[in-house]
Amino acid sequence: MNQVNLNLKVLIAGLASLALSACALTDMTKTETSSQVFPHKVPKEKPNIPLSAAMERMFEYSAPRPQDSELYSQFAYTELQGFDYNGGDGTITRRDPTRPILHNGKYYIWYTKRDTIVPPVGAMNAEKATDKIPSTDWDLAELWYATSTDGLNWQEQAVAVPRPPAPHPGHRSVATPDILVWEGKYYLYYQAFNEPSGLKGDHSVIAVSWADSPEGPWHATHKVAVKPGKKGDWDQNLIHDPMPIVYNGKIYMYFKSTYNKWPDNRKNYHVAHGLAIAEHPLDEFKKHPLNPVINSGHETFYFPFKSGVAGLIIRDGIERNTVQYAKDGVNFNIESNISLPPIAGGPFTPDAFTNTKDGRGVTWGISHFKTFGETRPYHSRLVRFDCDLSQDVHMPEFKSPNIWWKPDVYFTNMGLSPNLKKKVIGASKQAAKASK
Amino acid sequence: MNQVNLNLKVLIAGLASLALSACALTDMTKTETSSQVFPHKVPKEKPNIPLSAAMERMFEYSAPRPQDSELYSQFAYTELQGFDYNGGDGTITRRDPTRPILHNGKYYIWYTKRDTIVPPVGAMNAEKATDKIPSTDWDLAELWYATSTDGLNWQEQAVAVPRPPAPHPGHRSVATPDILVWEGKYYLYYQAFNEPSGLKGDHSVIAVSWADSPEGPWHATHKVAVKPGKKGDWDQNLIHDPMPIVYNGKIYMYFKSTYNKWPDNRKNYHVAHGLAIAEHPLDEFKKHPLNPVINSGHETFYFPFKSGVAGLIIRDGIERNTVQYAKDGVNFNIESNISLPPIAGGPFTPDAFTNTKDGRGVTWGISHFKTFGETRPYHSRLVRFDCDLSQDVHMPEFKSPNIWWKPDVYFTNMGLSPNLKKKVIGASKQAAKASK
Repeated sequence: MNQVNLNLKVLIAGLASLALSACALTDMTKTETSSQVFPHKVPKEKPNIPLSAAMERMFEYSAPRPQDSELYSQFAYTELQGFDYNGGDGTITRRDPTRPILHNGKYYIWYTKRDTIVPPVGAMNAEKATDKIPSTDWDLAELWYATSTDGLNWQEQAVAVPRPPAPHPGHRSVATPDILVWEGKYYLYYQAFNEPSGLKGDHSVIAVSWADSPEGPWHATHKVAVKPGKKGDWDQNLIHDPMPIVYNGKIYMYFKSTYNKWPDNRKNYHVAHGLAIAEHPLDEFKKHPLNPVINSGHETFYFPFKSGVAGLIIRDGIERNTVQYAKDGVNFNIESNISLPPIAGGPFTPDAFTNTKDGRGVTWGISHFKTFGETRPYHSRLVRFDCDLSQDVHMPEFKSPNIWWKPDVYFTNMGLSPNLKKKVIGASKQAAKASK
Repeated sequence: MNQVNLNLKVLIAGLASLALSACALTDMTKTETSSQVFPHKVPKEKPNIPLSAAMERMFEYSAPRPQDSELYSQFAYTELQGFDYNGGDGTITRRDPTRPILHNGKYYIWYTKRDTIVPPVGAMNAEKATDKIPSTDWDLAELWYATSTDGLNWQEQAVAVPRPPAPHPGHRSVATPDILVWEGKYYLYYQAFNEPSGLKGDHSVIAVSWADSPEGPWHATHKVAVKPGKKGDWDQNLIHDPMPIVYNGKIYMYFKSTYNKWPDNRKNYHVAHGLAIAEHPLDEFKKHPLNPVINSGHETFYFPFKSGVAGLIIRDGIERNTVQYAKDGVNFNIESNISLPPIAGGPFTPDAFTNTKDGRGVTWGISHFKTFGETRPYHSRLVRFDCDLSQDVHMPEFKSPNIWWKPDVYFTNMGLSPNLKKKVIGASKQAAKASK
């Protein structure tokens, strides 16, 4: 066989193979179209075939997989250095940190600090509280601040906002602050209590102090920034967890309230989040007419993201442990489902104060844990969390949805109590006997 | 003043008070209506006022609070007694249990058992697997069974389904069974492997064996009950995790597949669940045209609930760690968000085989954990879980959405690796320096 013949043979074989491939391709396409089976390769947009409810939903998330979603992350936790807790005897608590802000080479955080002669007696024993004995972990508290150059090693500085004298709001306790930076000034918003929390509930209003520098001095306005709603409104009783973001040129203040204590029965209480808006930090904030804007959550946090606002909705409610996003800051939709998220997190989000139209997200922050050790005394400690809820980093370490928990976690944190064990094993035994 | 006058005075005061109350009530109602603020008392149905997206959603769940939802639960875990794991050296694994069934006074479970001379070499080293050396934890496995009178103390009995001789499906490994009870006969469906899993993926088909009694003997049909889809279909590669439920007088088989390995790249893989239906256990199951019916999940389970089917969708996917419900068994919606749910759970749901129109739900079952101890050798153990996803019990112990995790869980299971710690703390430090 000469070279020409060989080449011809190769060419013919090639053409035949090409023709076969084309046939196969045509067949496959035809089959797929006629049967309308969902394809192996995920289409970029919702395909025009009948879909189940679940697959319809999949295309409504900003990414169909958590791995690919900027708004999904695992969380990692690191103990902070530099804070003294009196050996964990319950007399010192630090909790509910603000977002860290960066100023002149240092991070600043403010937080609830309680330093009392005894641990809290608990909300159920609130009538036993005195001027020296706290009811809850956040009773008889002040706002303190600390600084750091790395977000891990902190130096506690001093009190920033002490309790004001009666009758000013907060004369019993000031707690759960968050920070706002606005036109070169600094504003701390916080819960102001006039009686031991637990007596009638956890009733507080939002008060505000301001300063020209993160170092202070802080000027208490003795004004109420966000008031509870009118009798009959969902937020009639209390306003908690203020979190201001500069958005649309205004100050968007997200807050928590609890409702449905009707009749006055904590058993049925709901938790939700509202939004109140002001043009200036010292104006009274006006409630958004669509409140509540979040149907769940407890000790959540919010941050500017892309052109909207995202929230980490944790612990409480039917949509607990989700990240949600509202492109208008008001109408939130679920973007992902998260595990063991930070509690009362203050994310490092400097663009929360820049009126950004392209919020970058979160890579770290400070949150808290309750009750170190196996039992009471009840107190809380600040902790650092890291994550990738950010457009700026891409850390696969945080993106796997598949988190492996050590079996000990299940057995020691989620074991049956002896009574419950007796009950459920007894029921299994009974059912087995009955089947004989 | 005589008695009549006094009574008159009381009457007048009473009427005045009543009138005042009526005024107050009228005012309040008027104010509420005009301002249209969401009320403190949660209405039973969606109120006819403008609502945020979140509050619109709240009324679409079967209950607006997890505490009140039959489809929300915490989970408690208890180690099983009676199984030997060779000191946890990785040579014995038990995993992927079936649902327990109750027969003549005893619970029966079947499960993947691997008893090999060495621990698995891992999917990444699958080419090192031999006839004696397993690739994955479920390679070179057989289906064994055990019995119990209380669901906690188990006696392992014997092999139920051994690997068939080549070339029958499963000659390399049979794993991940589930049970069906149908017209007095018993059917085990399971993954059948013809090569070490990991070589080309985790490719398996669903095979079936049957018996007249849970004690066996089991008859291998050597038939494929659920085949992978055609080339180009989402489920072209494999069918995993068969779970049959008798529903609408037919057998609804839920199964897992993975897709979007296109190009052949595990990095982009999706996990979803499909449904295949048969009129008789030994027919070939026909895929539902709306597949996939669940957009997430890995080692999930399904159970009849009320007039539909509920699923525990865990680990993988954008809707990971949710309980979902489909009133038609096909179109699933999210009902709740759950924490640390059972892995590969087999719930005790006797009504999965009764063609019920009012499924009762789940109070306990058997699931598995991977890798006991801090490091490899990799193996798995069976465990009991308890919960309240049931219409028949009301156990507040399982209903709180607010789960407290010991701080150790965060630090030891969710700490930063040394490298990652260096990276993230370094980034914080760098940002602080840049702000000077």
